[in-house]
Amino acid sequence: MAAIGVALWKYTMRYAPLQPAWFNRDRFVLSNGHTCLFQYCFLHLTGYRSMTFEQLKSYHSERVDALCPGHPEIEHEGIEVTTGPLGQGVANSVGLAMASTHLAATFNRPGFNVVSNHTWCMVGDACLQEGVALEAISLAGHYRLNNLTIIYDNNQITCDGSVDVWLMTVMAAAKHADRPTFINVRTVIGLDSQVAGTADAHGAAFGRDDVAQMKTSYGFDPAQSFVVPPAVRAFFADLPLRGDALVQDWQSLVDAYGAEYPELAARFRARMAGEIDLVWTSLVPAKADFPSNPTATRASTGLVFNKIAQAVDTFMVGTADLSPSVYMTWPGKQDFNRPDLMPTKGDPGNYAGRYIHYGIREHAMCAVANGLAAFAPNAIVPVTSSFFMFYLYAAPAVRMGALQHLQVIHVATHDSIGMGEDGPTHQPIELASLFRAMPNLLYIRPADSEETAGAWVAAIEAKKQPVIISTSRHAVPQLAETRRDGVLRGAYVLQEDAEAVLTLIGVGAELSHVVEVAVRLRNDHGIATRVVSFPCQRLFEAQPLEYRRQVLQRHRVRAIIVYEPYAPNGWERYANAAVSVKRFGHSLPSKLAYKYFGFDATSLLEKTLDYLNRLDADELLAREFVDL
Amino acid sequence: MAAIGVALWKYTMRYAPLQPAWFNRDRFVLSNGHTCLFQYCFLHLTGYRSMTFEQLKSYHSERVDALCPGHPEIEHEGIEVTTGPLGQGVANSVGLAMASTHLAATFNRPGFNVVSNHTWCMVGDACLQEGVALEAISLAGHYRLNNLTIIYDNNQITCDGSVDVWLMTVMAAAKHADRPTFINVRTVIGLDSQVAGTADAHGAAFGRDDVAQMKTSYGFDPAQSFVVPPAVRAFFADLPLRGDALVQDWQSLVDAYGAEYPELAARFRARMAGEIDLVWTSLVPAKADFPSNPTATRASTGLVFNKIAQAVDTFMVGTADLSPSVYMTWPGKQDFNRPDLMPTKGDPGNYAGRYIHYGIREHAMCAVANGLAAFAPNAIVPVTSSFFMFYLYAAPAVRMGALQHLQVIHVATHDSIGMGEDGPTHQPIELASLFRAMPNLLYIRPADSEETAGAWVAAIEAKKQPVIISTSRHAVPQLAETRRDGVLRGAYVLQEDAEAVLTLIGVGAELSHVVEVAVRLRNDHGIATRVVSFPCQRLFEAQPLEYRRQVLQRHRVRAIIVYEPYAPNGWERYANAAVSVKRFGHSLPSKLAYKYFGFDATSLLEKTLDYLNRLDADELLAREFVDL
Repeated sequence: MAAIGVALWKYTMRYAPLQPAWFNRDRFVLSNGHTCLFQYCFLHLTGYRSMTFEQLKSYHSERVDALCPGHPEIEHEGIEVTTGPLGQGVANSVGLAMASTHLAATFNRPGFNVVSNHTWCMVGDACLQEGVALEAISLAGHYRLNNLTIIYDNNQITCDGSVDVWLMTVMAAAKHADRPTFINVRTVIGLDSQVAGTADAHGAAFGRDDVAQMKTSYGFDPAQSFVVPPAVRAFFADLPLRGDALVQDWQSLVDAYGAEYPELAARFRARMAGEIDLVWTSLVPAKADFPSNPTATRASTGLVFNKIAQAVDTFMVGTADLSPSVYMTWPGKQDFNRPDLMPTKGDPGNYAGRYIHYGIREHAMCAVANGLAAFAPNAIVPVTSSFFMFYLYAAPAVRMGALQHLQVIHVATHDSIGMGEDGPTHQPIELASLFRAMPNLLYIRPADSEETAGAWVAAIEAKKQPVIISTSRHAVPQLAETRRDGVLRGAYVLQEDAEAVLTLIGVGAELSHVVEVAVRLRNDHGIATRVVSFPCQRLFEAQPLEYRRQVLQRHRVRAIIVYEPYAPNGWERYANAAVSVKRFGHSLPSKLAYKYFGFDATSLLEKTLDYLNRLDADELLAREFVDL
Repeated sequence: MAAIGVALWKYTMRYAPLQPAWFNRDRFVLSNGHTCLFQYCFLHLTGYRSMTFEQLKSYHSERVDALCPGHPEIEHEGIEVTTGPLGQGVANSVGLAMASTHLAATFNRPGFNVVSNHTWCMVGDACLQEGVALEAISLAGHYRLNNLTIIYDNNQITCDGSVDVWLMTVMAAAKHADRPTFINVRTVIGLDSQVAGTADAHGAAFGRDDVAQMKTSYGFDPAQSFVVPPAVRAFFADLPLRGDALVQDWQSLVDAYGAEYPELAARFRARMAGEIDLVWTSLVPAKADFPSNPTATRASTGLVFNKIAQAVDTFMVGTADLSPSVYMTWPGKQDFNRPDLMPTKGDPGNYAGRYIHYGIREHAMCAVANGLAAFAPNAIVPVTSSFFMFYLYAAPAVRMGALQHLQVIHVATHDSIGMGEDGPTHQPIELASLFRAMPNLLYIRPADSEETAGAWVAAIEAKKQPVIISTSRHAVPQLAETRRDGVLRGAYVLQEDAEAVLTLIGVGAELSHVVEVAVRLRNDHGIATRVVSFPCQRLFEAQPLEYRRQVLQRHRVRAIIVYEPYAPNGWERYANAAVSVKRFGHSLPSKLAYKYFGFDATSLLEKTLDYLNRLDADELLAREFVDL
């Protein structure tokens, strides 16, 4: 791969080692991230300040502050995305190229190509076998992204000659195509070592003798380690200044652009700075603005967000082929698509469009969204949408977004068991456990339109983390006491009662069931309870201990019960007992499904009374969690 | 699609409606499972006993016992696999076809093709966009599976003529190819309705008027509903008897085969009955047989299972390109591959081979494994293997295996944070939360070789559920007190102490750290504790309450602490406090990673002492879970 690296960093890519965050730089993605030392070496040789020679030696070392972890990490200079899980980088690259294409279509004007960068993606055999990469490559071809080049490190045992020269020619050609370019480079793994061209060269060190032999053959002193000859330094020495000149030229272009198009340039600068138009805050409906009749929270997400999406260019909204279900379109929305596309139905193609039809490709959707978000911090905020169940297909990409602190908003409808007839394949019993456990991700289940507003505020304000807004297919009542500011704290007291013997926790689509249980306990059984709405565990965990204790009131109630038709894993932290679902679902209409699983208010009431009886009978051990 | 159905059920497929479990039947998979009513109608018309006319009306009804759920479910007659999550059915079909190919290569003899069935898979546009399907199709082509036909319901707006006749010709041809067949059928969605050929025909009902018009045009009485004309009944009437004749012919063939090859036939009958050769029980090493030095539990899985895999034909073992890491090969193993394959390195092709190179296709691996397992209950037990992290790629397929009660054993190495340098992309902090919450799946983390033996016993005996055996990359000590029978109960007391003030829970690769904490608490601080090893939450939950109380001893200790470098979600059920990891990982060598996250014994000891101090100071609320 070394020759490819020389071709890229010396002759092809436009970047600035001393200004690694230059907005219009070419993006390089190492999708085969386990070969990261390749990239680290070039970052060092081309003059990135942080990649000192000492740092370069930190690969696989005991240094906690190493800039050379086992896979490239986005936090470090010159690294565009964190890679490692194979195939992700390919999809990220498609997203990076789409971001560039979209921003160019939005901001460039004749003579002022202020966005003109290229994305280069290095892949190995593995990436090309992974489904997520195949999905993304299919999208890249469909969109005819001409600013994307995928370079295949095809290290078969045979090699057809002078790779380095041939490669540069191809790379120069790549930029003029009207579609993405795929370069199949026949390489030799472990070139010139004793294990060249074999699998033995893949993961293990070559060994002292072999390295010595290689050094000798290259004219190095085999007794010395970590030596970069002056000729090599000299070969790369011009790159920092060349990069600065590129930035300077571009800066002049942007200045001239600003003189010619002051308003557009102001918007461009704001986007580059990751600043979002604050008009969004005035577009979030007030509680009184929502319909008073029962409304599916998936519809509420549309009521809250459609106008914001329309008004604020920062958002690129997409769906995995579920537009009619996810309520994410807005009047006058334009599709992101290639300009030559004239479909029999729907929008003509337009790269400035901000609505993305990802096709039935949930995994690529979320991995591409990571690329859109990684182009520059908060310059584009991607919104994805699908059924909640199919975020399991996308989970590896959702995870990578969380790991990289990327702001991506995932709108997941058909949560809970209320989607009914679709049955157990679509009822996401155990998924909340995954996403609640996933670090740095906010998984929010709003209970009605008001809480949905809170979920969107949380998501738009979460500049450094992805959010899943998890909504219901079926209509749920609008509740009098719900509060969007409560959502921002993760959980809050919906109904207080000084005489309460129980704290009842309700979540999302089932909160109204819990409110009804509380009413019937009080009216029919004289039992006072308090109700807590609990849309987001992670936001709650971020609150001060004092607030958390106030909400739960563990010290004064006999017990805390949580009601949610999901696997209970994790609720045990907050509750002493749960009505939950520990099996797969069942195909039944929504109301019947709730009844079948004991989640109608009557069943919940009976289970609650039974639990109180068991507490009275003292048959439970203190601190023992009980499934009701 | 109706014409395709007629072509398949009337003219093409070999099956027996009255003997739906006939071993050599053709398998039909509806990968676009949301069109299930298509399949239900043909099951009714062709005479499957359970699919009565009343049952056929149960689609989207309130019947809890409906055989017509919103997607086809494996539990019901004539349904080979549960589908719905798009793309899964394609991969299942590849697995079904591989199962047939493999069993034919193993058991057929000249003149005695006792296994000769074909697999038919129906797909829509969506399935062909999903990565898992693309991965699986690539495998099917590579293996040249000539017993697999994928039929694409290509319902574009245009249609090129006489689909039904053309289709049957192609289907007849399909069986003679030396590779899988893909039939692209141009169909019209909602044929003859007002919304024919449009997206409006996809999910919504046609409406009363439109249906009436269609009925009239077909010669039906529009006032009548649910009518099957006698001519239609007559058209399908021969199929039950034709099916019985097919079974009878095959039965005669098997009888003759039994006379000619009595031993082989006995093995064949045992496989058909899902009986596993009990020799495996004698091959599990005794505790004393394991090495006494520290051993990675991934190596222990090999020590336990390699000989069993070698001796017992039921197992088909595969890996997503990680043979050197997963320790799943055995001496003399043969690869499953096409007979014409002569690779430059490795085994020549052989369909009787039982080691499967899935390529870097984790998702397809697990979905194909579901197909192998679904061919007939326990006739083949597939074993998959990869890094634990990448079971997140495969999670939708692992889920479908659990939903379908299929015995599939997943061997997942590099769990915990002990794989070190690979860093946060490979450290599966939150994955255990998913798999512990997933219904019907056993997620088992053994602590040493002895517990690994227990994990394998649990997995081989789990006839109706998938199992993930989650193992360490790094060497862990062999512990004196571990017991395989304890693994089968999910958790057990490793070290008892009548004076104990704490129960310490250790899991998997970190159990030895907890044992060390207990020793130092006793020796250096005079604090008596008891240690519980807790490899599998679901197995523990299946134990009687009395056993669970005995293990945890909640009533007599001051507190229970769990130590695991994963998200704590779910441990709150058993413990009052946890040392856990709630952030993503870090790239460091194994030991350093443990230290960095406070999981070396010294850090764990300090946190434990600190917790005791806080209990003494009475600063914690009773029943309040504490993160240490």
